[in-house]
Amino acid sequence: MHLSELSHPNQLHGLSTAELEAIARQIRERHLEVVSTSGGHLGPGLGVVELTLALYQTLDLDHDKVVWDVGHQAYPHKLITGRYKDFDSLRQKNGVAGYLKRSESRFDHFGAGHASTSISAALGMALARDRRGEDFKCVAVIGDGALTGGMALEAINHAGHLPKTKLVVVLNDNDMSISPPVGALSTYLNRMRLSPPLQFLQGNAEEAIKHLPFLHGELPNELKTLKESMKRLAVPKVGAVFEELGFTYIGPIDGHDIAGMVRTFEQAHRTEGPVLVHVATTKGKGYAYAEADQVGYHAQSAFDLATGKAYPSSKPKPPSYSKVFGQTLVKLCEQDPTVVGITAAMATGTGLDLLEKAFPAQYFDVGIAEQHAVTMAAGMACEGLKPVVAVYSTFLQRAYDQLIHDVGIQNLPVTFVLDRAGIVGADGPTHQGQYDISYFRAVPNFTVMAPKDEAELQRMLVTSIHHSGPCALRIPRGEGEGVPLAEEGFEPLEIGRGELLTDGDDLLIVAYGAMVAPAMATAGLLQEKGLRAAVINARFLRPLDEVLILPMAQRIGKVVTMEEGSLAGGFGAAVVETLSDHDVLVPVLRIGIPDVLVDHASPEQSKHSLGLTPPQMAERIITRFGVPLQSSLPAAAAPVAV
Amino acid sequence: MHLSELSHPNQLHGLSTAELEAIARQIRERHLEVVSTSGGHLGPGLGVVELTLALYQTLDLDHDKVVWDVGHQAYPHKLITGRYKDFDSLRQKNGVAGYLKRSESRFDHFGAGHASTSISAALGMALARDRRGEDFKCVAVIGDGALTGGMALEAINHAGHLPKTKLVVVLNDNDMSISPPVGALSTYLNRMRLSPPLQFLQGNAEEAIKHLPFLHGELPNELKTLKESMKRLAVPKVGAVFEELGFTYIGPIDGHDIAGMVRTFEQAHRTEGPVLVHVATTKGKGYAYAEADQVGYHAQSAFDLATGKAYPSSKPKPPSYSKVFGQTLVKLCEQDPTVVGITAAMATGTGLDLLEKAFPAQYFDVGIAEQHAVTMAAGMACEGLKPVVAVYSTFLQRAYDQLIHDVGIQNLPVTFVLDRAGIVGADGPTHQGQYDISYFRAVPNFTVMAPKDEAELQRMLVTSIHHSGPCALRIPRGEGEGVPLAEEGFEPLEIGRGELLTDGDDLLIVAYGAMVAPAMATAGLLQEKGLRAAVINARFLRPLDEVLILPMAQRIGKVVTMEEGSLAGGFGAAVVETLSDHDVLVPVLRIGIPDVLVDHASPEQSKHSLGLTPPQMAERIITRFGVPLQSSLPAAAAPVAV
Repeated sequence: MHLSELSHPNQLHGLSTAELEAIARQIRERHLEVVSTSGGHLGPGLGVVELTLALYQTLDLDHDKVVWDVGHQAYPHKLITGRYKDFDSLRQKNGVAGYLKRSESRFDHFGAGHASTSISAALGMALARDRRGEDFKCVAVIGDGALTGGMALEAINHAGHLPKTKLVVVLNDNDMSISPPVGALSTYLNRMRLSPPLQFLQGNAEEAIKHLPFLHGELPNELKTLKESMKRLAVPKVGAVFEELGFTYIGPIDGHDIAGMVRTFEQAHRTEGPVLVHVATTKGKGYAYAEADQVGYHAQSAFDLATGKAYPSSKPKPPSYSKVFGQTLVKLCEQDPTVVGITAAMATGTGLDLLEKAFPAQYFDVGIAEQHAVTMAAGMACEGLKPVVAVYSTFLQRAYDQLIHDVGIQNLPVTFVLDRAGIVGADGPTHQGQYDISYFRAVPNFTVMAPKDEAELQRMLVTSIHHSGPCALRIPRGEGEGVPLAEEGFEPLEIGRGELLTDGDDLLIVAYGAMVAPAMATAGLLQEKGLRAAVINARFLRPLDEVLILPMAQRIGKVVTMEEGSLAGGFGAAVVETLSDHDVLVPVLRIGIPDVLVDHASPEQSKHSLGLTPPQMAERIITRFGVPLQSSLPAAAAPVAV
Repeated sequence: MHLSELSHPNQLHGLSTAELEAIARQIRERHLEVVSTSGGHLGPGLGVVELTLALYQTLDLDHDKVVWDVGHQAYPHKLITGRYKDFDSLRQKNGVAGYLKRSESRFDHFGAGHASTSISAALGMALARDRRGEDFKCVAVIGDGALTGGMALEAINHAGHLPKTKLVVVLNDNDMSISPPVGALSTYLNRMRLSPPLQFLQGNAEEAIKHLPFLHGELPNELKTLKESMKRLAVPKVGAVFEELGFTYIGPIDGHDIAGMVRTFEQAHRTEGPVLVHVATTKGKGYAYAEADQVGYHAQSAFDLATGKAYPSSKPKPPSYSKVFGQTLVKLCEQDPTVVGITAAMATGTGLDLLEKAFPAQYFDVGIAEQHAVTMAAGMACEGLKPVVAVYSTFLQRAYDQLIHDVGIQNLPVTFVLDRAGIVGADGPTHQGQYDISYFRAVPNFTVMAPKDEAELQRMLVTSIHHSGPCALRIPRGEGEGVPLAEEGFEPLEIGRGELLTDGDDLLIVAYGAMVAPAMATAGLLQEKGLRAAVINARFLRPLDEVLILPMAQRIGKVVTMEEGSLAGGFGAAVVETLSDHDVLVPVLRIGIPDVLVDHASPEQSKHSLGLTPPQMAERIITRFGVPLQSSLPAAAAPVAV
């Protein structure tokens, strides 16, 4: 059987190890073919090919449930659950998603894009199974990186307390997050992987003790007692942390030995209560370049399979916002030794890898642990450091309470740089940075800003670092506008002041962050129709520049707001609230992300679907206000009597 | 020296153990006196009197930093850091706060109301200290309950990875959260507390092994080898989990033996890297009633010291929202065995203790682990259960990403009942349930509602449980309106439909949840001035009943919104957005919580400070709109030309 003939994972059941190894090769081939052509996650999937096949040998996927943590390790799962043929469309509009999705396949038992959720979800399923008197297996597959997320540890703590609830946790230990893993747990797992002298004790202690040379045969009484003591002492040694927390620990086992894993998983399924199977895998397995550079090949844009090199870009691009941020932070850290950068396992994505290289003592990677990152930063700020937390917008959702409780309420000077704010493209709904504007609106004491280009990012960063309270700064995915950058001497901005980019009498556009350039482009298109739009770069969501916005809104009488974020309670809402509070009762068209999930696609496609391109926005404005823009309510500009 | 003479904790330094024991008695006396008079947290503070004194004997509080987890265990700390005299004002307006607060005392090094933050904050301080080349001690004091919060475990994992960063974590193990503790870690700590055979191995393994009877004197070679093996095997046994995670573990020690603790803390301060001191304490120590009923005396309203009984209420009160919720859920669980209730260590506070008693198999307490609670519920919903997560509004902030990523995006039918939504009173800023309306606005697929009274709560609960998607339902602290309750056969509501409670032509009040009754009272006051206000009970924030609200707003021309939540992006904002989107350009007065921190006080006092009482609201309305309400902009009711 060839992989392409598989339509149901249960078809794997009869296959021999040799046949499964052939399927494994085909999975790698297809995986590499697609990702090298269209880009996507590479290393994580290549590492779990055998693990997936072995696990599915021991499961009936018509009934049993597997929850894959962070869906990007589930490409092999996708290839054997009916998505082989469509796999060319990976991460493309209307194509196969890059993460798991319940709506995409009945074999995707739980959606996942963020890390550390799988044990909680699988435990919930197991408890539901038992409550309903059903009988199927529940398995979570979690990486060693994801295991450091607090939520996974909460789940371990709870599951370990439920000796009657059957649950198998497969720990896919590739000794990596996206970055090399951080934390004592990782060191601990490493010791187990690398300490052969301890391994003989794994599994059955009785067996192990028999092999101590002097404990054979009939033992003198005192040694019998000792043997008993040793049993108690010896058992927890390998996997002690998990055993002490109520799990049966099995491992470590070789994650590329299918037959061995099948035997071990079967043993795990026979075991009562919560079981942790520790599987040692190699990220990028089977593709030499990926094995050698595990950070670089975690995810990739299209590349040449033969050389492992990314295809050269067709034209030079401006530097990304992330890179400009990283470079600017390096300079600020150089000037001020109390400035430090913090990441939760996303050094390369956020540009903080530049700081790591330049000033490692001012760089902190806490692992996948956003909550801890934020409150640790608050603690640092108490003692005179100026911490800058670099984090994807979507992952900061993990630390919302810490923003309020530890940073906001205490008014501590911590800077948050929210990368991938707005539309993220191929990563899809779980990763869209669309909620931050809304969720920051009410967080106390925060100054919230977004730059119109990468030069303004530099100015905002220095503004934040010098500010006496907490700041959040949101930047989009991808390259900047290509404007000239300052080398040093970054000029701070006045907090709460926007800027008027162009004046006009027919319409007022108030734009925020990455929507400022499209707003200017839209104004240009409107100009062609004879409509003169004024454009304000708001710069600040909080505090909003009422002094600038209100009189102009009143004078012009028609307002359009533009943001790359959810409309509900977002930037446009802030403008409308302010207008309403001041009785500037003028019509407002709010452009942004409506109450929909934004699916995976290219950012351009997503923006087009949402009507966020300049031609679409110009058309929406004309549809709403007419051409020439009709004069609004005569009395609209006059404040209501109070 | 008497406690009342203490103005600086360093004054304790010279005192003998006997003198410290006297101070301990005085702390308990004062603690009991104040809490029995005005209410507050009792058990946690009584348990750490000796711990606090012993710890402060070993610290220089002019330089060293102590971070107390969940401030409610810090009453003894408050009493010896200059707040003895003012302590009568505990938790009262302008009085001593019930939690820690940096603005209250220079000895409150980190504010805390929520659990599990202390290790992160103290580690941040320690890293800042080292970065700045300073030299002081950083200590976190965390309860065993708080240790199960994922954030604390993230911090342990990070700190254990930093062998050069000196940090002392004092584990105040009273074997309790607010409820009895849940989880494998708690069981593990218990084993250590309760297993004398293991304790002799603590500390020095060499020493321990000498005491094995047959290992004295000169040993035969093979036993020498064995001894070496045993050393390696034995050392990590007590505290293995912490030792394996990079901490030096010391304990368990008696948390009521001052001299012993002083010695141990001094040993801890001499140890390099991260140290965990495991201190066994008794919650409620020294007050027999509190020791006997540790759940009941966690926090108390005023009570008779002699009998331990709460003073009888002066008049009978309606049942609290929490109680009605608990009772109703019990009935729904009885009718449908797939309904289950979930709490994160807040059974009594949320009313879920009623379910625990009635149907323990349908009740799940996951410990202090909100993130896990939410995603576990999502997993349950995947497999056909109807989970109801009962959680304080302020604590759900802990699981914001789980609401979006696991429940909302996947559109899973999980019900969230947010207790203590709105003004919470004496618990102060860290606990105000003021953010939930804003933060739920953009969460995909959620239906969000709030009942006007406890009978509507019943109807909303059954509506939620029968709905095919996720629902959030917010209820206030304290008693209901005293309306008649259904015994069973709760009638579901139509989702997205509000109700018109009273009609009028002068003003439209749109109120939400707990503000509906005050809205009606306000309308009554306005009526006395000859103003006829229509009042809508919106019921739903999401979806908002546009069909009801828009035509009435257009007809009446003046709108007031009322909510017990943040104004930024809140309920009033939703109304203003909708009016604006539909070009219903009428003046709106939004009443709610402005951008301020709401300090501790009685709920009534807080509401008064915020201008949320009916007389104040009537006055604000009249100030804004005039008496008789002036007619608004003539064209305001007509839609703008489009």
